Amino acid sequence: MVLSADSANRSVGIPPGVKSSFPAALAIAAEAVDAALELLLPKPAGLHARVQEAMRYAVFAGGKRLRPFLVMQSAALFDVEPQQAVRTAAAIESVHTYSLVHDDLPCMDDDDLRRGRPTAHKAFDEATAVLAGDALLTAAFEILADAGTHQSPSVRCRLVSELARAAGNNGMIGGQMIDMQAAEKHLLADDVITLQQMKTGALFEFCCVAGSMLGQGSIADEKRLRGYAHDIGLLFQITDDLLDVLGSAEKTGKAVGKDNEQGKKTLVSLWGIDVARQKAQGLAQRAAQTMAHYGPAADALQALPAYLLERES
Amino acid sequence: MVLSADSANRSVGIPPGVKSSFPAALAIAAEAVDAALELLLPKPAGLHARVQEAMRYAVFAGGKRLRPFLVMQSAALFDVEPQQAVRTAAAIESVHTYSLVHDDLPCMDDDDLRRGRPTAHKAFDEATAVLAGDALLTAAFEILADAGTHQSPSVRCRLVSELARAAGNNGMIGGQMIDMQAAEKHLLADDVITLQQMKTGALFEFCCVAGSMLGQGSIADEKRLRGYAHDIGLLFQITDDLLDVLGSAEKTGKAVGKDNEQGKKTLVSLWGIDVARQKAQGLAQRAAQTMAHYGPAADALQALPAYLLERES
Repeated sequence: MVLSADSANRSVGIPPGVKSSFPAALAIAAEAVDAALELLLPKPAGLHARVQEAMRYAVFAGGKRLRPFLVMQSAALFDVEPQQAVRTAAAIESVHTYSLVHDDLPCMDDDDLRRGRPTAHKAFDEATAVLAGDALLTAAFEILADAGTHQSPSVRCRLVSELARAAGNNGMIGGQMIDMQAAEKHLLADDVITLQQMKTGALFEFCCVAGSMLGQGSIADEKRLRGYAHDIGLLFQITDDLLDVLGSAEKTGKAVGKDNEQGKKTLVSLWGIDVARQKAQGLAQRAAQTMAHYGPAADALQALPAYLLERES
Repeated sequence: MVLSADSANRSVGIPPGVKSSFPAALAIAAEAVDAALELLLPKPAGLHARVQEAMRYAVFAGGKRLRPFLVMQSAALFDVEPQQAVRTAAAIESVHTYSLVHDDLPCMDDDDLRRGRPTAHKAFDEATAVLAGDALLTAAFEILADAGTHQSPSVRCRLVSELARAAGNNGMIGGQMIDMQAAEKHLLADDVITLQQMKTGALFEFCCVAGSMLGQGSIADEKRLRGYAHDIGLLFQITDDLLDVLGSAEKTGKAVGKDNEQGKKTLVSLWGIDVARQKAQGLAQRAAQTMAHYGPAADALQALPAYLLERES
């Protein structure tokens, strides 16, 4: 079932009659998922409190919460209980944060700065960062399998399966594996697209389809949301690469110019800045059109592509 | 429902009329879980094949497969389909292997040798080892959530939840966190017991209770199996510590004397060798008695404690 804008707004906490603006919807998703994570993540306690402190340090670092936004907005299209959507969003943000913590490790991308603060292995130590990442990944599955996430155990099993697939060896982890070898390998543009679809695209796709899974949408809905997620994911990556070339560390909150330094091929280095921008615009347009199907209920999802095109961090 | 020895034997692949000996039951579990892992783990393919090669390298290293044995033997007590038991066993072995791969990392225990071969980060590299561990953990949840593991999605959700709890921040990961700080902290015997119950005990407990979950045993069954797992887990750890003091690298297939070198307190260093041995014997006796409830169907589970007392690797 597709809801009116009012109904969709209500289910993400916006009072009736108020047209959801994109920044408001993003802020609401961020606030809701932070509150959920506060409750769902363990409180530091016992002899092993350090790993729980590191989990919280990494998660509560003021990220944009773009993935939770996608889950909550796609869920709102199908009249999903906000509490179910936000738990699913919390699980995905937990997985996303784990991937950042592990990717920042000295043996991976070796980053000291993340979201403007020392990375987890700098603030704690490498062993704690590895363990905190492991624990965030594990916690995500615990959250999804819990009855609070959905009344139907079949739906919960499907969420667990699809998240495992999106985040696993043929998804996010495989993408990072290719990325680690990217400097040595002769990657073509298609290979870089594959890399990015695995590394970031698969999780974006899960975010968008999770709403339909929770709301038991149709196969056509899932297809539509997968198409949107595909475009948004690639658009996100191109704009990320553009920021690495053109952005400032101050605004992005992380080191810039690293891809070039490390000899990594990106879509921007392969296509050039102008072509990359054109492709990004094309993807943004198509993504917005795909969501037009849902009318005003999908206002915020339709506004996201423009936001990604214009972002400075 | 509790089965006859014959019925239990059949469900782990032993022909009727043959009394299951412990070594035979262990070998059968190892063979069955290896065959399942061969099918369930991804075949190396694509630009990211390296991470899949590392997953397989770490898993197919000839371990004892003690955890799969526990799952399959406890499942046999409740007439569980062997195919369901072996999938669950494969998921647990995948989690166990991930923990070994991460624990061996230079920033953790810094081990070069595991099961007599170079550790994953030595055979590949640190980044690949981190990713392969992540992928093995993720794969475990994908296996459990799949309909092949059990016809009831409620049971599958419970398996996912309980594995996440056993392996998570308040279980295996928390135990490793305490272990990493053990050299600096003044741990008492009770703290070391807590550490070990989290680090190895929680997963042992899940192995034993998984059989009852799959077979939908009673609360009394679960309590009995948890008691057995508790004793077996502690017994396993004491004998592991004894091997570290008294064993040879040749027989154990890993470096020995490390706990002492690193100033880590173990139950053996706290209690002394003789008291540790006495306690191990007491635990072994109680564990065997607990399983006597199930009669001949639990022959192999009753024989395990004696095997652990006598093991040389």
